Amino acid sequence: MKQLFIISFILVGCITLIAQSHPNLILTKQGVKDIKTGGTAPLFDKALAEAKAEIAQSLKVGIQVPIPKDAGGGYTHEQHKRNYKYMNLAGNLYQITGEKMYANYVKKMLTEYVAMYKDLPLHPVDKSYSRGKLFWQCLNEANWLVYTSQAYDAVYDCLSAKERKNFEDNLFRPFADFLSIENPKFFNRIHNHSTWGNAAVGMIGLVMKDEELINRALYGLSLSEQENLAKDNDGGFIYEKGQSKAGFLAQIDHAFSPDGYYTEGPYYQRYAMTPFMLFSLALHHNKEDLKIFEYRDGILLKAVYTLLYQTNQAGEFFPINDAMKGMSIGSGSVISAVNIAYGLNEDPELLSVAKLQSHVLLDHNGYAVARALQEGKAKPFFKKSVELRDGAKGDEGALGILRTLKDEDEIAVLFKYAAQGLGHGHFDKLSYSMYDGNTEVLQDYGSARWVNIDHKAGGRYLKENKSWAKQTIAHNTLVVDGKSHFAGKYEKANTFHSEPYFFNVDNANIQIISAKETNAYEDVAMQRTLILCNGDDFSGPILIDVMAAFSENEHQYELPFHYAEHFMRLNAELKSNLPKIMGEKHGYQHLYQEASSVIDGENLQFTWFRDNKMYSITAHADTGDEAIIARIGANDPNFNLRRDALLIHRKNKAKDALFLSLIEPHGSYSPVTETPDTPYSQIKSVQVILYNKEYTIFTIKDIHNTGHTFMLSNENNDSDSTHKIEHEGNVYEWKGTFKMNYK
Amino acid sequence: MKQLFIISFILVGCITLIAQSHPNLILTKQGVKDIKTGGTAPLFDKALAEAKAEIAQSLKVGIQVPIPKDAGGGYTHEQHKRNYKYMNLAGNLYQITGEKMYANYVKKMLTEYVAMYKDLPLHPVDKSYSRGKLFWQCLNEANWLVYTSQAYDAVYDCLSAKERKNFEDNLFRPFADFLSIENPKFFNRIHNHSTWGNAAVGMIGLVMKDEELINRALYGLSLSEQENLAKDNDGGFIYEKGQSKAGFLAQIDHAFSPDGYYTEGPYYQRYAMTPFMLFSLALHHNKEDLKIFEYRDGILLKAVYTLLYQTNQAGEFFPINDAMKGMSIGSGSVISAVNIAYGLNEDPELLSVAKLQSHVLLDHNGYAVARALQEGKAKPFFKKSVELRDGAKGDEGALGILRTLKDEDEIAVLFKYAAQGLGHGHFDKLSYSMYDGNTEVLQDYGSARWVNIDHKAGGRYLKENKSWAKQTIAHNTLVVDGKSHFAGKYEKANTFHSEPYFFNVDNANIQIISAKETNAYEDVAMQRTLILCNGDDFSGPILIDVMAAFSENEHQYELPFHYAEHFMRLNAELKSNLPKIMGEKHGYQHLYQEASSVIDGENLQFTWFRDNKMYSITAHADTGDEAIIARIGANDPNFNLRRDALLIHRKNKAKDALFLSLIEPHGSYSPVTETPDTPYSQIKSVQVILYNKEYTIFTIKDIHNTGHTFMLSNENNDSDSTHKIEHEGNVYEWKGTFKMNYK
Repeated sequence: MKQLFIISFILVGCITLIAQSHPNLILTKQGVKDIKTGGTAPLFDKALAEAKAEIAQSLKVGIQVPIPKDAGGGYTHEQHKRNYKYMNLAGNLYQITGEKMYANYVKKMLTEYVAMYKDLPLHPVDKSYSRGKLFWQCLNEANWLVYTSQAYDAVYDCLSAKERKNFEDNLFRPFADFLSIENPKFFNRIHNHSTWGNAAVGMIGLVMKDEELINRALYGLSLSEQENLAKDNDGGFIYEKGQSKAGFLAQIDHAFSPDGYYTEGPYYQRYAMTPFMLFSLALHHNKEDLKIFEYRDGILLKAVYTLLYQTNQAGEFFPINDAMKGMSIGSGSVISAVNIAYGLNEDPELLSVAKLQSHVLLDHNGYAVARALQEGKAKPFFKKSVELRDGAKGDEGALGILRTLKDEDEIAVLFKYAAQGLGHGHFDKLSYSMYDGNTEVLQDYGSARWVNIDHKAGGRYLKENKSWAKQTIAHNTLVVDGKSHFAGKYEKANTFHSEPYFFNVDNANIQIISAKETNAYEDVAMQRTLILCNGDDFSGPILIDVMAAFSENEHQYELPFHYAEHFMRLNAELKSNLPKIMGEKHGYQHLYQEASSVIDGENLQFTWFRDNKMYSITAHADTGDEAIIARIGANDPNFNLRRDALLIHRKNKAKDALFLSLIEPHGSYSPVTETPDTPYSQIKSVQVILYNKEYTIFTIKDIHNTGHTFMLSNENNDSDSTHKIEHEGNVYEWKGTFKMNYK
Repeated sequence: MKQLFIISFILVGCITLIAQSHPNLILTKQGVKDIKTGGTAPLFDKALAEAKAEIAQSLKVGIQVPIPKDAGGGYTHEQHKRNYKYMNLAGNLYQITGEKMYANYVKKMLTEYVAMYKDLPLHPVDKSYSRGKLFWQCLNEANWLVYTSQAYDAVYDCLSAKERKNFEDNLFRPFADFLSIENPKFFNRIHNHSTWGNAAVGMIGLVMKDEELINRALYGLSLSEQENLAKDNDGGFIYEKGQSKAGFLAQIDHAFSPDGYYTEGPYYQRYAMTPFMLFSLALHHNKEDLKIFEYRDGILLKAVYTLLYQTNQAGEFFPINDAMKGMSIGSGSVISAVNIAYGLNEDPELLSVAKLQSHVLLDHNGYAVARALQEGKAKPFFKKSVELRDGAKGDEGALGILRTLKDEDEIAVLFKYAAQGLGHGHFDKLSYSMYDGNTEVLQDYGSARWVNIDHKAGGRYLKENKSWAKQTIAHNTLVVDGKSHFAGKYEKANTFHSEPYFFNVDNANIQIISAKETNAYEDVAMQRTLILCNGDDFSGPILIDVMAAFSENEHQYELPFHYAEHFMRLNAELKSNLPKIMGEKHGYQHLYQEASSVIDGENLQFTWFRDNKMYSITAHADTGDEAIIARIGANDPNFNLRRDALLIHRKNKAKDALFLSLIEPHGSYSPVTETPDTPYSQIKSVQVILYNKEYTIFTIKDIHNTGHTFMLSNENNDSDSTHKIEHEGNVYEWKGTFKMNYK
């Protein structure tokens, strides 16, 4: 055993010796060689030319390392951000071109930082629970070190031992200590901020071969009871209840579900992926034994794919929870994640993503992607229908994504039956949104914020984010008695999650998800089943939305459909009114009712027009059901909200309630030929045959009178169980949870 | 003399003989040869493949010539439309491929039409002043003959003399007589309907070598006094007052201004170009002596360019008057006009337009375009700044278009100081709209209509077209006392036009237009001057809008800015209110006031956000001036109107009034990097130094305190006159109508 240890030691020592040459953090010696000898790669050449131009411009202006003064958006803040980006680029340019001027650029800038950092006090702006020195918060401080350690690694061999000692003793080590030992609240959380902190300390540790720093990054600082009670700026606890671990590995353990889903949603996952991937790649290069990319069944690479799955056809992330629309795979953090992943697995499908991104990293992974694209190796990135479990253990609900094709475009349905999503979560249990290509058929509003746009509350979250965007009525899900889920209380919402009931996408033509929610309201149980049909049974793809509520007591039930624009037709008499504010709280204070209608037939049918396409909802209606045409915009004195339209299907008084709605993308229009194609719904009727907690049976008829009957078992999802129901002279008999057409 | 006549006769006979060979209407024998021997041309190959596929599909379904029954949109209507299109394509396919099956297709379909037409009564739908037989209106009937005569010409040589006699005696001649002699109200107007009628009769006349029909087409039927009083469906007179001529040449005389401008605007010009270009090309091939393309100084080709000038960067027509947004150069009529024009002048700039259209005609002109594109002959189509005079004589006002570059995008300003534009005209004297690339900075609403979309009043003009879209407040121009120009009375508006005062685009960096309107209101004279600056004087292009009103009496003046979306910031306290309807008529009944503000400083500054770009208005404000934030949508029970936003700058009580406003495209935003670029206006102030009927002098200062003074002479546009004004210790001295900066 001892002998084995010695052999291992020698081997490890040998590996360590090889690893000691620089660069070896993100860029590697072999990587540089590959770039220099590998042939043309246009996308990489573009990245190279852009980097050269940026450094040339920076040299023209002159190196600027100002005394920290401004918060986000201000000059000193933005300049220090530019500096770490420039150092990173210059370091790589030095390695790739061999031109000494780039190494000198890094050296000169680092020298200025050393000089300034020595006696630098805390940043003058005191707005963060973890104030930095160069920046107003440690988060940016960690960003700086993540990129600067790459620059240091790249120019390491150019520096004298004395210079290195100076940088390490007077800048990097105190900087790393400040981020960790001096700021345990920042460093020791289970949080994306801390992930950046861990990565920063670990990466500089790897360059400096400082095992203590590396271990600190991997395993965190020791946790004390006292710290467990600390709170952050928003009044939330800094540490997880009963948290026993910290550090980078603990982040990996906690941040993702076993399916690589990040509980806050893709908008925040995108941001968090950078430190995960960068530090992991550095560990992969320097601590191969750790097998970091195999850790937790390869969760990091899985998370990259999971992130990519959560996009629409345009590559934009589904804007669930607090998220800005338009954020896409074009983001730098996704480029970095995709390039690193490709470097590891050479999956040709990732190349299609890179092609859409049309940017690569200025390193050997970026080069490998660009070169492979040049060689025509790209294969289409296949976004499959998936269920992404939520929660570190995968037992806190899930996000379901159904996809199918409609001509050239993809119909995508995103169904949210997950956990709350922490502080950025919205109160929208069982909500969904639907896309037709790049068109939002039924939208998720996203968050009420204009990031970094000063006119709008300095670019921070607006108060309408809480009063509107987070509320239930702002989503395509059921609202009971005009109140949000969990009454809009985060503390309560955070302790619950919805329950997946059934997920089956084996038949691409009939994909189905069903989930339940029993905690959002005191005495109402909800179950929602979504069925995406794309076979020859209907003239095109349709989404069947079965939303059932059960209660012992009478309630008002409202199901909104956020169609945004433009009203075409309702199959009932519409009474328009002067815009009237719909309520006082739970988001209703931001809604104007513009018109209403009492549905007199068996069905409510509503057609709208968006992006030159036409959509219809055909829904089962009970006697007395109302359709409300509403618009966002009330109590919005600063015009922070978009004036989008919605339809609300309302049942005024019911114990149990079934909303059975068909969403049908059927038509299109060309403003050039001025010709509509299929402007009318192809559905004649939807008819409920029976529904109760146990079973739902309904029939859909198209305009040619072809009918299909759907049967659902709501309490028994055993695929082998058989069900038999006799109802009004018919016998409905089937096996399994779901069946279309009997006999 | 007699001898000369004989020689001429022989020559003409000879020419006639050559011309007698078929095809020679649109497609020619030489043209077919060129196509067969000219080399590859991918766009043409695409047109060929599409045509083959369409005919194959039609053959699969079987030829269908149903008894006429339906109005527009219905089956028989659409089928007869398809039929003439198919016959035209099949005729050309026969010529190009030599395959007899295509000729047989045409022959068979014509045979069915002959059989049906013989005893065909008037169309059962009685909704037109000129009912057709195959269609509910003669207009469609004329469309049919324009395309079918091309098909007949293409297969002529395949037919026996007996077959030709049958087609001509029992179909074509009665058809042509029906369109002309039997429907003089349709045939003898000066109107785009009649242009189609003239072309149809003339084109079949050319194929049949029937000089009588050709002359009827060229010169019309004789006009009687009685006919002069006939009215059309809308109650308007069918004939022009005192009309003395009719027929195709009279249409050319009347339809266009000397600059090729069509008084209804580009949306209708696009539609009218087809019969003008097709019949003219047929005349060019068969009646070369007529020199039709040189007629009126080559007005037809000029009109093609004029039409193309009236587009934004995306190739969409400026939606002045009744016009649908999104109609573009991609329209079939423009493809046809551009292909024919290229066949005549081989202008390489037209190839750029064709490239954007990415479709060509299935004839030798289409082939020539596709081949030239393949050979890389295209040159950028340069859309210059132009003044397009209105009126047959060019003395009824004008449309001015200013263009300049902003980075990659083009800033375009469309200024309307023209005649009313007949029945499709809007009441918007001196209005303008502004584009930044494809983005509408300040929009023209266009018309309130959803063409061919049955949900919206059968696709016809909506009543909101009259009550909103035509009204003055729906445009970016001055409204006095809440009333539309000419009180919204067409009869009065149609007798007046605005007066061009000054137009100078010699200096691309300071382009200027000025025009006056003295008839829109009883006692208010208006002058508007637009100056588009793009030099180094400001940080980017800006538009200076000087709108002056003069009156002996006190009035309320309102200047709307149709920014559509999204409010970012106003530099004054904003008081929001429950949406309140702004008035009872003149369009105000469709507006909700959402907020208002009394401007307390010298300037009103308003910033908005659209298509990820940011724009600001900085305007001079007098004491008591108000800013109203309004939105379209009141009294719109069927949700026919878009809910777009506007800003109204209001002066409550004034005799003379000057609205001096700067429109500044200054910022942009990326939702991926979440970084705004220049979110704030770069203008610090606008200051009026003096203004009266004679002179306007003002100063603009940017945020760096750099100022520029502008001096305008409003009543003397002699470029040699000198002006000198002493005011508050300064002397303003300049030569000509306009000067920036004195001394």
